[in-house]
Amino acid sequence: MNQIAYLDNAATTQLDPKVLESMIPYMEEYYGNPSSIYALGRQSRLAIESSRKQVAEMLGVKATSIYFTSGGTESNNTAIAAAVNELGCTHIITSPIEHHAVLHTVEHYCQYNKLSCSLVKLNAMGEVDLPDLENQLAAYTKQGHKCLVSLMHANNEIGVLLEIEAVGVIARRHGAIFHSDCVQTIGHYPINLIDYGVHFASASGHKFHGPKGTGILYVSDGTKFGALIHGGSQERKKRAGTENVHGIIGFTKALALAMDNFLHDHSYIKSLNKRMRLGLKAISKNISFNSSENSLYTVLSVNFPAGTHTDLMLALMDRKGIYASGGSACSSGDDGGSHVITALKKDLPGATIRFSFSKMTSVEAIDFTLEFISSMLLPKDQAVIL
Amino acid sequence: MNQIAYLDNAATTQLDPKVLESMIPYMEEYYGNPSSIYALGRQSRLAIESSRKQVAEMLGVKATSIYFTSGGTESNNTAIAAAVNELGCTHIITSPIEHHAVLHTVEHYCQYNKLSCSLVKLNAMGEVDLPDLENQLAAYTKQGHKCLVSLMHANNEIGVLLEIEAVGVIARRHGAIFHSDCVQTIGHYPINLIDYGVHFASASGHKFHGPKGTGILYVSDGTKFGALIHGGSQERKKRAGTENVHGIIGFTKALALAMDNFLHDHSYIKSLNKRMRLGLKAISKNISFNSSENSLYTVLSVNFPAGTHTDLMLALMDRKGIYASGGSACSSGDDGGSHVITALKKDLPGATIRFSFSKMTSVEAIDFTLEFISSMLLPKDQAVIL
Repeated sequence: MNQIAYLDNAATTQLDPKVLESMIPYMEEYYGNPSSIYALGRQSRLAIESSRKQVAEMLGVKATSIYFTSGGTESNNTAIAAAVNELGCTHIITSPIEHHAVLHTVEHYCQYNKLSCSLVKLNAMGEVDLPDLENQLAAYTKQGHKCLVSLMHANNEIGVLLEIEAVGVIARRHGAIFHSDCVQTIGHYPINLIDYGVHFASASGHKFHGPKGTGILYVSDGTKFGALIHGGSQERKKRAGTENVHGIIGFTKALALAMDNFLHDHSYIKSLNKRMRLGLKAISKNISFNSSENSLYTVLSVNFPAGTHTDLMLALMDRKGIYASGGSACSSGDDGGSHVITALKKDLPGATIRFSFSKMTSVEAIDFTLEFISSMLLPKDQAVIL
Repeated sequence: MNQIAYLDNAATTQLDPKVLESMIPYMEEYYGNPSSIYALGRQSRLAIESSRKQVAEMLGVKATSIYFTSGGTESNNTAIAAAVNELGCTHIITSPIEHHAVLHTVEHYCQYNKLSCSLVKLNAMGEVDLPDLENQLAAYTKQGHKCLVSLMHANNEIGVLLEIEAVGVIARRHGAIFHSDCVQTIGHYPINLIDYGVHFASASGHKFHGPKGTGILYVSDGTKFGALIHGGSQERKKRAGTENVHGIIGFTKALALAMDNFLHDHSYIKSLNKRMRLGLKAISKNISFNSSENSLYTVLSVNFPAGTHTDLMLALMDRKGIYASGGSACSSGDDGGSHVITALKKDLPGATIRFSFSKMTSVEAIDFTLEFISSMLLPKDQAVIL
């Protein structure tokens, strides 16, 4: 294979070799069931509880607030189900640009439990209109509803960031439950979940060089919630099933590496993002961006000039070993377009492509991609791709 | 550490080094998100679909009937939820010796959806009373109920086997849905799920030297079911969340190894079980068994003479590096006794311990354990353990 430019790190990331190294002993030597009471089981239990403590400390919360799950999607499902089933929420306020793990789950519970749901207003950049959120909360609460607010911390397609602390304050002012899908931010920013005022937050290991099939759900102190998956007494009876011990170890190691090297990685990834942005602007003044310079630093969503087509551009880049995406990976088997771009009612004449970066992305990968994109677009913005 | 006798293979098994080897490339090189459409994503997609095909072939079913999950517990939950939510089951018939992954899930849905539930009669060995099952199905169906029958293929504590094909025939005769927790049998027997007449069957990778955090749900052709975990379009929209690719690879490799070496491993493990049984009988005539010679060959549940205590025996064995269990691992954080032994109303004067074996158990481990047990029990069955 030729040079590879993997620019889809918001879809998934390469496992850090140090993470794999941390997992190996738990796939070779320490194989005991954490629920078993003998030494081999206690070793696994200790590894899990020590991981929970580490993860909690890195997120500024108590160890008892952290539940290990099979991923961000399961965490989102557990939170939304709990808000409906245990916390009595009867109205859900979310946004049209949430990940499907939230949107489809909200749809399911609204339909199944005959709940109402409304979408918060967004501006053209995808930013939540806070006065609208406040008005909606006031109105639905007045009608006797208990509300769940489910808003993602950073959008996975365009990178727009939520004013999460402000939303936390507004939600609590109206007695609402606040869930935030933090899959694109936990492992990417130093985070203190207490400050955010969230009742529930979700994270996924494979978004920050941890293993696939791992995630956490944070549940704030005193928030009642029940299991989505019933059975054994694992995770203090909130998530049954023998624990994915090596996965938990890997999740924790990946988060620790991300936090330990945050300043360095953040600055490096930001420089890659800027290089890409400037390089694209140099190629054509008709290239624009769906991501502002202050949005999630790992993501750059790009609108190409009229005449370009997303699928064709992606296919040509694919053949060259450049991997990027149209919308989110999770919906690529689902439909053609991006529900995020559609929701923002952008009247885009050409292709929309998301490039996303990580500490493992090389400068060469960026330059190689820019060069190839440049070769695809004729001078004077007359696209060759039809 | 001294010699280790790991005799708790029904709780979990050591990962086969060949399984780990098969997983490594998917934790190093092939890290693409299976939902991504470029080459790196398609490699992951191909690996998953090829795994699905292999697993399906080994179980005698179509590839489209196999869904990858995070484990047996999630699979059981998905099946029971589907029977209630999509298939309209209003009465559940199960047994008191099911795994908590079934019992607690049935309890949850019965309570939440206000359904009725009944327990099938068992004989002293834990065998299902088929005429009672038939009578119950006839009676509840006559009352207008659609029934779900959830009965495990082999009990994890005492190893009693279900006459699964007969149950399949009876269930279908009454238009009932049949779910079987096959966590102790898939990977331990050559299995044709079509012959069993099940609508749903669950399996877990770590019970047969595969990775923790992996499982499958089999859903028979034409059986309607919905997701427990909503979101992306993975697993044909029946199980959202980025796939645990290396886990799926490991699950499949473990099952393939188990099936390829079945005759050899089965005969070896059976010989270990027999050696343990005969060795214990030689130590004391007052030792009896909860497992018949024809039950699950991996498990031997043993009743020790009066005066012995389960917890103390386990603790003393633990100190010696002998790892066995009282009940199932999954309930050890939960309560003292075994709900299985309690349900069978056995009036046992002494300790009850489950020993369970695998291809990785050595003859030396059995002999070492027998020797230690012998040293714990005084002659004439006067137990030293009080």
